[in-house]
Amino acid sequence: MSKKMLKPSTVLYTVPVVMASCGPLEKPNIITLAWAGVVCSDPPMVSVSIRPTRYSYQLVKETGEFVLNLPTVDQLAEVDYCGAKSGRHVDKFAACQFTALAASMVKAPLIAECPIHLECRVTQVLALGTHDLFLARIVALQADEDAVNEEGDIDAAKVKPVGCLNRSYYRLGELVGPWGSLGKRLLPSS
Amino acid sequence: MSKKMLKPSTVLYTVPVVMASCGPLEKPNIITLAWAGVVCSDPPMVSVSIRPTRYSYQLVKETGEFVLNLPTVDQLAEVDYCGAKSGRHVDKFAACQFTALAASMVKAPLIAECPIHLECRVTQVLALGTHDLFLARIVALQADEDAVNEEGDIDAAKVKPVGCLNRSYYRLGELVGPWGSLGKRLLPSS
Repeated sequence: MSKKMLKPSTVLYTVPVVMASCGPLEKPNIITLAWAGVVCSDPPMVSVSIRPTRYSYQLVKETGEFVLNLPTVDQLAEVDYCGAKSGRHVDKFAACQFTALAASMVKAPLIAECPIHLECRVTQVLALGTHDLFLARIVALQADEDAVNEEGDIDAAKVKPVGCLNRSYYRLGELVGPWGSLGKRLLPSS
Repeated sequence: MSKKMLKPSTVLYTVPVVMASCGPLEKPNIITLAWAGVVCSDPPMVSVSIRPTRYSYQLVKETGEFVLNLPTVDQLAEVDYCGAKSGRHVDKFAACQFTALAASMVKAPLIAECPIHLECRVTQVLALGTHDLFLARIVALQADEDAVNEEGDIDAAKVKPVGCLNRSYYRLGELVGPWGSLGKRLLPSS
């Protein structure tokens, strides 16, 4: 297969899509983010990248806190809306008929209708270009009773996960296997 | 739906899985990474997190370069193997029957059998805990002729994308819609 050169761009996949809630419980906002990822296992940390022009940028920078709410495939209209509109002009909780629920460790509220919530506290902000990178520690984790078991395993049938590729939303498909289970056929037999 | 508190952990989804190739063309190595993401659109940048104990950590740190090779679902045995074994003890290119192909902008080679390759140059390394975070600029992008069109749109049927959740590999499922297309039903009619 011959290779072709393309203009460098951010064609990494599969990337997540999350609704980050931020600001105070009384006047919260939501921003949809796909430039997000896990950056450390212990302490558990995530990163999110936000354009400095976005309304939520100031809210996150000033408070140093946000919540990552993981959406289901049934919430993609709301996800998409919260990525396209600005909290300067609309109340996104009202527009999406979402409920702002007090978090346990941060002032930013949970979006009650989402199944999983990572409460995050910012540890560092780095200016990279179009986006600033926020590194944050996951200080609390909440989930719907039936979404995650005590071992932290997610019930994929319940949470109906979404992933992104090509600046588009996709359902997650079938399980192939757990990490550590598939490479054995390449190991030399003993 | 009532919420339950769980021990904070890295339950973000859907996260990518990539094979990072590193080291010189003559003696390259491969490390599988899921703690990876896009961090900036312009300049196009990614981050990857690597444990300092891993063999590839020193290779990436010393050379300041790596290539992210995006695998297909048919390559998950190799992906899994390259995440479990150490390059200190095995030649992963040989074990996986992969071909090391010279890259265009970095010394680390491409894994020829993968459909898409992001050539990356490290700009910053941050120690976070179990993992160090490498921020890197995408300095070149190569792809199989039929995997990506000139606009940078990926042919999902050709690349057979993989995503991770629950420390497990999943196929990507059906397209729901492009970013910006789904939120319109929530916009007030004019």
